[in-house]
Amino acid sequence: MSLIVQKFGGTSVGSVDRIEHIAARIGNTRERGDDVVVVVSAMGGETDRLIRLAQGIQEHPDPRELDVLLSTGEQVTIALLAMALQANGCIARSYTGHQVHIRTDSVHTRARIVHIDDQRIRADLEAGRVVVVAGFQGVDEGGNITTLGRGGSDTTAVALAAALGARECQIHTDVDGVYTTDPRVVPEARRLEVLTFEEMLELASLGAKVLQIRSVEFASKYGVPLRVLSSFEDGPGTLIAPDLEDNRMEQPLISGVAFNRDEAKITVMGVQDRPGVAFSILGPVADENIEVDMIVQNTGADGTTDFTFTVHRNDFARTLQIVEERRLQWGASGVTGDDRIVKISLVGVGMRSHAGIASRMFRALAAESINIQMISTSEIKISVVVEEKYLELGVRALHTAFGLDGNVVAGDRSQSPGGSGRRGS
Amino acid sequence: MSLIVQKFGGTSVGSVDRIEHIAARIGNTRERGDDVVVVVSAMGGETDRLIRLAQGIQEHPDPRELDVLLSTGEQVTIALLAMALQANGCIARSYTGHQVHIRTDSVHTRARIVHIDDQRIRADLEAGRVVVVAGFQGVDEGGNITTLGRGGSDTTAVALAAALGARECQIHTDVDGVYTTDPRVVPEARRLEVLTFEEMLELASLGAKVLQIRSVEFASKYGVPLRVLSSFEDGPGTLIAPDLEDNRMEQPLISGVAFNRDEAKITVMGVQDRPGVAFSILGPVADENIEVDMIVQNTGADGTTDFTFTVHRNDFARTLQIVEERRLQWGASGVTGDDRIVKISLVGVGMRSHAGIASRMFRALAAESINIQMISTSEIKISVVVEEKYLELGVRALHTAFGLDGNVVAGDRSQSPGGSGRRGS
Repeated sequence: MSLIVQKFGGTSVGSVDRIEHIAARIGNTRERGDDVVVVVSAMGGETDRLIRLAQGIQEHPDPRELDVLLSTGEQVTIALLAMALQANGCIARSYTGHQVHIRTDSVHTRARIVHIDDQRIRADLEAGRVVVVAGFQGVDEGGNITTLGRGGSDTTAVALAAALGARECQIHTDVDGVYTTDPRVVPEARRLEVLTFEEMLELASLGAKVLQIRSVEFASKYGVPLRVLSSFEDGPGTLIAPDLEDNRMEQPLISGVAFNRDEAKITVMGVQDRPGVAFSILGPVADENIEVDMIVQNTGADGTTDFTFTVHRNDFARTLQIVEERRLQWGASGVTGDDRIVKISLVGVGMRSHAGIASRMFRALAAESINIQMISTSEIKISVVVEEKYLELGVRALHTAFGLDGNVVAGDRSQSPGGSGRRGS
Repeated sequence: MSLIVQKFGGTSVGSVDRIEHIAARIGNTRERGDDVVVVVSAMGGETDRLIRLAQGIQEHPDPRELDVLLSTGEQVTIALLAMALQANGCIARSYTGHQVHIRTDSVHTRARIVHIDDQRIRADLEAGRVVVVAGFQGVDEGGNITTLGRGGSDTTAVALAAALGARECQIHTDVDGVYTTDPRVVPEARRLEVLTFEEMLELASLGAKVLQIRSVEFASKYGVPLRVLSSFEDGPGTLIAPDLEDNRMEQPLISGVAFNRDEAKITVMGVQDRPGVAFSILGPVADENIEVDMIVQNTGADGTTDFTFTVHRNDFARTLQIVEERRLQWGASGVTGDDRIVKISLVGVGMRSHAGIASRMFRALAAESINIQMISTSEIKISVVVEEKYLELGVRALHTAFGLDGNVVAGDRSQSPGGSGRRGS
């Protein structure tokens, strides 16, 4: 018998009916001959309800106590799911993070898993039980309850899959897989059959929120195959595997087209082009805990440079203020900002060995008269910043130009990935 | 510094406002120089909500999983109360039953505490912290979450007080103490200053529901002084102490007048008065899990006897049927039943050394023309069954006859106890 870890998110367990529905699905997996460990999130909306309760008492709730509070959300779900499995004829047992010793560090509300004691779970599996584990939570060395932060249930599932040597870790969500791009923007977007961890990481960080980045990193580190599936309908979903070399019929070029609407850019013009200038500009921004995304710097002919970077749109006004205040000490000739921009990215491991991707990308955008404001490249992605109004046009142009349109064909992954969807904890 | 354990029930922690209110009260206790361990129930209504969720899945929810589910109720409260204490300037830490190793047996939904590991709590108290512990829950030898049954939070509080050698275990409720009788029946009912464990046990089992019987037994066994107090207003409440001999100014006579409206009686007439007849009648009733309260048997002159017993009114019809079915095999001449009866009881340790209490009781009832249908006596109580319509009249007559009317005077406990109120978990 091989083992499968199945994770169900908040929407999938949002009501008694849905819990009964997934109990039936888990029963099907068992009947196909696999052992099953299930990881669940809190029922949809429950975590937010608990946070509101806490904020009614402390504006910034004590992190240790917040973890004690929030961890009840998943505990409710595991008990209800174990009952539903039993009502369905499946012998099952639920466990909190504490009970199966999901040991974490002591950073409350965003702890990291350091060890899992798999003894108890293995004994239950050997006894023919389905094991239901509360996601998102653990316990530190001192026995304090911790939580892993939003999306932490994915991490729990992957960590359990790694500790137990599971054949696959299945993440059940409200989408049926990872797509070449957001189907709401490009109706021709295709579900991808397979995808590498690196591609998934680039797609996730670029705005495709199907999987929590940390859980993908974790899966990558321990070589756990991940599969994104729909909670509501049957289907193969998308497999995210450690290494696709063996499965490939031909080298894939582009996996997908990702985009991010939440960008804003700031340009500091005419600063002296000398060592340390990047730090002197970005240091004060980082000090305010503002995350910087793209950074582009061009050397000018006259010994000065224009320095441009992007931040989340919510941080735009504050960042602009920080920069304006320091403009004179940098000797900058001016500061401009624009929060009507978006970022579009091509992602694909095939870029590593294929030349000409960038020029093909720029040509496709030029054909639609879309002006590129910034360009940034990495080993497996190329990102451009364009005016906001061109988002849909640009994404569609690239999706078509790189042959991503059309229906997915089983086993055929000659082309490429993007992603879509929403995730809870 | 001495230690006080304070328990707050569901109504006392029913909202964020109320939690903040009790945080302030706990702060006051700390300021008076005592260390404090707090035990709390689930927020009012929460346990019922969780049970309804479970019953939506399984008509008879799996007991192990029900305990996992229900224990979240108290876990929510401990976290919110710890936050409220901190917002109030009190360093506090919350613990689940699992975290402070409240070890129980494995009888899910009505487990019994077998051991408490006090190390962690002592360390926190030494560090100047208020310790907030989830009531009602524990963990068995196998690490499974257990619950102690309705009212279990009282038991948790008493067990902690015993384990930690607390000076007093304070049970905060929605009434301000134990009364000589129910003030809704007798407006002149007095709050009692002190009361023995035995008296409290008799009063509780007779229908006064201020304290959970098990917690009183536990307190009695370990000699933990219990105090019943109001959650909402200041006041000394009622002290239930292991031994009152030293505190008494004079021997108390009657503690209070308790009553029970839920009784029904059944009489089997003219059965042969031979060994084993009581068992032959009550055996089949017990086999149906029907609890029998009072039992009275009179020997007749003709070698036959009338055998009368009372059961809960809800069990009346079923019991009557059981008895009717077997009447012929007992050779009984007839069976009668009446579910329009009530039981009124006088309770007081003073009875032990005072003669004439019974006759005084019967005279007071006779003066109101109340006919007594059954009489049953024990060392510290006398119970009578009367027609339902005489309940209020009878209780008032006895309350007055035994000098229980009037306002309580601090330190004066020359007279006597009863009880009232409602309890959650």
